Amino acid sequence: MRALWLEDRALGARGDVPLPVPPAGEALVRVRLAGICNTDLELVKGYYPFAGIPGHEFVGEVVSAETPGWAGRRVVGEINASCGSCPTCAAGRRTHCPARTVLGIKGRNGAMAECLTLPVANLHAVPDGVSDEAAVFTEPLAAALEVQEQVAIGRGARVVVIGDGKLGQLVSRTLAIAGHAPTVVGRHRRKLALLARAGIATAAAADLAPREADVVVECTGNPDGLALARSLVRPRGTIVLKSTYHGDVTVNLSAIVVDEVTLVGSRCGPFAPALAMLAGGAITVTDLIDDRFALADGVRAFARAAEHGVLKVLIAA
Amino acid sequence: MRALWLEDRALGARGDVPLPVPPAGEALVRVRLAGICNTDLELVKGYYPFAGIPGHEFVGEVVSAETPGWAGRRVVGEINASCGSCPTCAAGRRTHCPARTVLGIKGRNGAMAECLTLPVANLHAVPDGVSDEAAVFTEPLAAALEVQEQVAIGRGARVVVIGDGKLGQLVSRTLAIAGHAPTVVGRHRRKLALLARAGIATAAAADLAPREADVVVECTGNPDGLALARSLVRPRGTIVLKSTYHGDVTVNLSAIVVDEVTLVGSRCGPFAPALAMLAGGAITVTDLIDDRFALADGVRAFARAAEHGVLKVLIAA
Repeated sequence: MRALWLEDRALGARGDVPLPVPPAGEALVRVRLAGICNTDLELVKGYYPFAGIPGHEFVGEVVSAETPGWAGRRVVGEINASCGSCPTCAAGRRTHCPARTVLGIKGRNGAMAECLTLPVANLHAVPDGVSDEAAVFTEPLAAALEVQEQVAIGRGARVVVIGDGKLGQLVSRTLAIAGHAPTVVGRHRRKLALLARAGIATAAAADLAPREADVVVECTGNPDGLALARSLVRPRGTIVLKSTYHGDVTVNLSAIVVDEVTLVGSRCGPFAPALAMLAGGAITVTDLIDDRFALADGVRAFARAAEHGVLKVLIAA
Repeated sequence: MRALWLEDRALGARGDVPLPVPPAGEALVRVRLAGICNTDLELVKGYYPFAGIPGHEFVGEVVSAETPGWAGRRVVGEINASCGSCPTCAAGRRTHCPARTVLGIKGRNGAMAECLTLPVANLHAVPDGVSDEAAVFTEPLAAALEVQEQVAIGRGARVVVIGDGKLGQLVSRTLAIAGHAPTVVGRHRRKLALLARAGIATAAAADLAPREADVVVECTGNPDGLALARSLVRPRGTIVLKSTYHGDVTVNLSAIVVDEVTLVGSRCGPFAPALAMLAGGAITVTDLIDDRFALADGVRAFARAAEHGVLKVLIAA
C-alpha cells in the first residue's frame, strides 16, 4: 500500500509498504483523512525516536474486524493501545499503560497510509452528521477536553489560554463552550481573527494584568509561553501544560512554592464527548483547515504544515 | 532590647535594638521561645534579601494590645501580615497578599528578640495543656498541614514523603495522623529512627518501586529529591513541593505532560488545626528538639542548627 515512512529523520512517500495484517482483537481500517499534528512535525525533527508510518489523527472506514457490526463503519480511533491487564489499566488509566503502543508515535504504525490497524476497543463510530473533515479533529479535540477532565474550573474563573495555534484554538473553543469565557494570548493576526469569529476574546500579553488569572492553559510548548503563564497566574492558581517541550526547561520552582501554584501536565483526552460535541454542532473546527494533500504528496503536506502560521493540514489517503 | 540582627549575611547578637512600638492594630508580644527553620539558615546565606531580626517560629506572651482580652495571654502568631483589603485578601488568600510583610522574612522584624509586634488578627491563644516547647512548632506544623488543605488524598493512596528532616518529620506525622500511612525516604539513621518510633514506615529510595506512588511530598528542597519524586510518582499522580529550591531548577516538563503529573507548590498553612492537634496530644513534636540556646548565644544556635543531621534548635528569649 501507499504510505508515508519516517526513518532517521527522513520522511518519504512509499508505494511498497505491505498491507498490515490485524492481530487478534484489532480491526483493519481504511484511512479516509489524516491530520498533521505538531507532534508529527517533531517526530520528523527527531525529537522522539520513531521509525515507521507517522500519523495519529484520522477518520477511516473499517475494512474488517473479528467483532461483528464494525465492518463498513466510519470510525475514529483512540491512539493508545493498552495491555488492559496491568495495574495501571486496571486503575482506569489506560492511556498511561506502561506497555502501551501509540498510533504513529510509539511502536505502532500510524494513519498516514492507505490502511492502519487498531484494537477494536479503541474505535468510535462517527455519527452520520459529522463530516470527515470534522471527524478528523476528534483526537486533538479530545486532548483539548482533557483540560476540563483534570481541572475543576469554577464559575467566573478567569481563564487564559496561551497560544493561538491548532491546540490553543481547540482548547479555547472547548472552554468557551463550557462557559468559561477564556482570553487567548496569541501573536498571529489571522489566527486571532478566527478566534474572534468564534466569539472568543483575544489579547496581547502586555494587555493582561499580571497575577490575576485563576487558570492558565499553556498551549505553545515554548519556554516563553510557560514564563508568560507564570506571570499571569494568581497565587494558588493553576497552570495546565498542554504541550510538550523540547529538552529540559529551567523553572523557578521556589516561586511556584511561594505562590502555591499548581502545574498540571495534560495529554490525551476522552473521545466520546469530543464526538458528541462535533455531532451536536456546538463547535466549529473545519475553519482550522488550511490545506489538503493527497497521500502521494505527503512530504509536501508536512512541509506546508511546518510553514509559519499554518494551522491544520490534512492528508487524503 | 536584646535581639539577633542580620545584615549583609552577617548575623550578630545585639543588646541595643529599640523595643518595637506596635502600630495600630498590632500587639506587643514578649517572645518566650523561637525556633530556627531552614529558611532562617537560608536568609543568613543570603538566598533571600532580608535585613533585620530573623525568626518566624515562636511562642510568646502578649504585653499589650488595643483589643481587650489579649494582654497576658500566651500566643503563637501567623507570620503573614496582610493588608486585608486587596482582591487577594478579599478572596481569602491572605497569605498571598501582594502587600504582605512576613515575620522575620520580608519587611518585618522577627522573633529572635525579646519582643516582636504582630497584628492582633494574626495571634492564636495557646491552650493551657500545650507546653512552650510544643507550641513553638505551631507554624511549621501548620505548614505541614497545608499539604492536606491543598491535595485531597484518597483512602488507600500510596503516599511517599521525601526527606527525614524537620519538615519531612512534621509532614509525615500529620499524614500518618490523618490515616494516610506515608512511607518516608531519608538518609539519616537517627531521624529515620525517630519516625519509626512515631510508627511511620521508612525506606531507602532504592527499595521503592518506581511509578507507583499516588502522592509524593518533596521536603528536601534539593533537586535530587525532586528527581526522586518524579521517579516514584505514578502517571496522573501528584507531587507536592514543600520546600523552596536555591536558584532555578531544570525540569523535564515533557515527561510531566506525557505522564499528566500534577505539581503543587505548598507554603504556609492553617494555625487552628495545628494548635488543636498539639492540644489533643495526637502528635509528638518535642522529640525533634536537638538543642536550646539563650538569645545572647543566638549566633551559636544558628551554627548548631546548620550542623549536619541536626533537627530543631530553639532560642529562649
